[in-house]
Amino acid sequence: MMKPQIEPKLLKGFRDFLPENEIARKSIIKRLEGVFEQFNFVPIDTPAIEYAEILLGKSGGETEKQVYTFLDQGERQVALRFDLTVPFARYLAMHRHELGLPFKRYHIAKVWRGEKPHAGRYREFMQCDFDIVGVDSVSADFEIMLVMYRSMKAQKITDFKIHFSHRAVFNDFLSSLGHADKAQEILRIVDKTKKIGIEAVQTELSGLIPHEGIDQIIEFVTPLSSIETMLQKLQKMLGTDNAHVGRLAGIYESIHELGLESYFTLDSSITRGLDYYTGIVFETFITGYEDLGSVCSGGRYGNLVSLYASEQISGVGASVGLDRLIAVLEKRAGLPTTRQQLAVAIPVIDLSLTGYYHKIAEILRSEGIVVEVFHEKKKLVWQFANAEKKQIPFAILVGEDERNKNVLHIRDLFERKNYENLSIPEVIVKLKELIAARRS
Amino acid sequence: MMKPQIEPKLLKGFRDFLPENEIARKSIIKRLEGVFEQFNFVPIDTPAIEYAEILLGKSGGETEKQVYTFLDQGERQVALRFDLTVPFARYLAMHRHELGLPFKRYHIAKVWRGEKPHAGRYREFMQCDFDIVGVDSVSADFEIMLVMYRSMKAQKITDFKIHFSHRAVFNDFLSSLGHADKAQEILRIVDKTKKIGIEAVQTELSGLIPHEGIDQIIEFVTPLSSIETMLQKLQKMLGTDNAHVGRLAGIYESIHELGLESYFTLDSSITRGLDYYTGIVFETFITGYEDLGSVCSGGRYGNLVSLYASEQISGVGASVGLDRLIAVLEKRAGLPTTRQQLAVAIPVIDLSLTGYYHKIAEILRSEGIVVEVFHEKKKLVWQFANAEKKQIPFAILVGEDERNKNVLHIRDLFERKNYENLSIPEVIVKLKELIAARRS
Repeated sequence: MMKPQIEPKLLKGFRDFLPENEIARKSIIKRLEGVFEQFNFVPIDTPAIEYAEILLGKSGGETEKQVYTFLDQGERQVALRFDLTVPFARYLAMHRHELGLPFKRYHIAKVWRGEKPHAGRYREFMQCDFDIVGVDSVSADFEIMLVMYRSMKAQKITDFKIHFSHRAVFNDFLSSLGHADKAQEILRIVDKTKKIGIEAVQTELSGLIPHEGIDQIIEFVTPLSSIETMLQKLQKMLGTDNAHVGRLAGIYESIHELGLESYFTLDSSITRGLDYYTGIVFETFITGYEDLGSVCSGGRYGNLVSLYASEQISGVGASVGLDRLIAVLEKRAGLPTTRQQLAVAIPVIDLSLTGYYHKIAEILRSEGIVVEVFHEKKKLVWQFANAEKKQIPFAILVGEDERNKNVLHIRDLFERKNYENLSIPEVIVKLKELIAARRS
Repeated sequence: MMKPQIEPKLLKGFRDFLPENEIARKSIIKRLEGVFEQFNFVPIDTPAIEYAEILLGKSGGETEKQVYTFLDQGERQVALRFDLTVPFARYLAMHRHELGLPFKRYHIAKVWRGEKPHAGRYREFMQCDFDIVGVDSVSADFEIMLVMYRSMKAQKITDFKIHFSHRAVFNDFLSSLGHADKAQEILRIVDKTKKIGIEAVQTELSGLIPHEGIDQIIEFVTPLSSIETMLQKLQKMLGTDNAHVGRLAGIYESIHELGLESYFTLDSSITRGLDYYTGIVFETFITGYEDLGSVCSGGRYGNLVSLYASEQISGVGASVGLDRLIAVLEKRAGLPTTRQQLAVAIPVIDLSLTGYYHKIAEILRSEGIVVEVFHEKKKLVWQFANAEKKQIPFAILVGEDERNKNVLHIRDLFERKNYENLSIPEVIVKLKELIAARRS
């Protein structure tokens, strides 16, 4: 035994995915892709590494500190992408004419941020973005909301609320109060309502604006029980002809037409911190897990490509917080079954039958059955235990005798029951029956 | 119009994937995953960034120069993974007890190498590895070969050959010639047979060893028409009791049992350059595209985890060259259909029907139909042209009148034919019929 030379360890904030977790993650992603594809969104990909200048173009000091930047072999200043939005903007500016507008894409990929890791925050994580660019309409806004709704449903989550608002509505309201100059700071405070509560928001605001302004702001962001009454309140406070309230009313019409009122809330406290958004904004909360934060957020932006093109391309999109979603599903014991397919093991009874075992396996696989051939002759009890550990419920038993007689035995490892002397066609029928029975 | 501030461009050796290419890549990967899962391999994932010490542990100077290394925010020397093997070794050393042995995993992920980019070589590319570790048997070796075979078949490639050999057989042979001390150099030269041809190999060898040795080496590596006769030649040259030839004979038995002789070639010229391999080695060539190199290669290694653990874990595995595979499929016009699903468009005739359009879309989607709702009221000819550009063959037409009468029209955009005044259930039936007809 040699002493290992290097201690195997991971960097803080980075994760290995063990098979159970990776199977769950892949299955959650597959469901999301299924939804995107049903709406005819198309996938794209961009490099993980780009010129630092391009990725950092728009970012302020805080983001810049978190970005992994370095010199490559050619002494170029490069960086790892920290989100999928900036690369998409660059991509769109470069390929706009090949793509055509409007363009609907999704992009599921890893991003890296060297921030302090803490509970639920990692330095490497997956983002899952979907956007409609090149069109500014109620229909596009609503489609993103519908995809958000369907993304939750696809995970078998039914008790969630998508909170939405309009960034400009809040700006209009602050202008009417004479606080347009403090809009950024007020937005940032109000955006924390979900996290810190109304009272803390009141306190923070009191350092910024006079008392009566605070009351009006609190009234503005206090949710009402229905989208309809909330719309009426906004109309009262901003005038019935306010175009942005009109946009919200248009979205409500579609929600109503599809009978989805119980999944959506018009919530003026949602403003999204980022300067980036200019229109509708949304966040998704799962009932009982509101403190985890939004699991799917986004909004409408006025121009995505300003840094890289002279053209203006607006859009609307959202991003699924995959880690949060997984955390919720895990807590609710709703992680996708780790072994989706019930498999069949072929233990080794006689090593000289290796080829025959693989041949049987291939016949069963051609019938859609997942088969694991074992590779070592060990005691049968050991092989059975190994199969059970892998959650494999069935085994096919064949020795020299059985091969000569052209028969097989099935063993139900969980029920400890045998089905003996079956022909291959009989085995196929019986296995399908057993698998179907166990599934239901 | 503002002048863009930053020219949008990519680093050399890095690629954007436009939707058509990304759909093809995803679909090729999906087929591979389907094969792995049928054999009960499980997926894993590891971080893109690790301690440089861990990733570079075993590498020599050449690899090291290609690896992207840098200091992270905490001044740690880190690196981007340059393959999936080293991270797997580290992963296995850390999680060996949770995983249990034998362990069968696949891992499909990006890796980065800062080498000079040239035709078909990129600085960022995807690797697709599958391995069986913790067991040393003919059965495990053969299973990897079977997965390689099935991976090609899953891509609808039928004219390929998997060349295999045994690394130790060649070593044994060189020992018998008294050239064991030059084994590394000779192996490296012989490994180039496919690329540079027998004569160039002869010339290179003549600088290294005496003439008669060269002739025997050339005889040893010259392929024969069948695996069986090749085995006989090896037995003659190395003795019938050579254990490594015995291993090859065992593998041949399984190939024969499954009737797969036409897909496999016993080819002693395959040695794989890497020191890493200790047993069986294999490479896959697609007929007519041999000059592209192997599209799926691998072999058996004696110990994967030596750097990170005191235990010894051997294994066998292979890696699909995804970029090469895509290149071949592209050249043969065999890239997976870019739009797998035939979609239905809902053009905007009346903006006030936005909610209704989305409602119809959702009804059709619940029947498994891909639907794209358009988001802008433009001339119908423009919307039809846009649908055709997206290869959408059908449209649903509804205006205020139709909605009031509760009817829809289907337009076949390619045939320029209408099916008018259908109820929603009739639309579903007709669309399924039209989609099925167009698919076949």
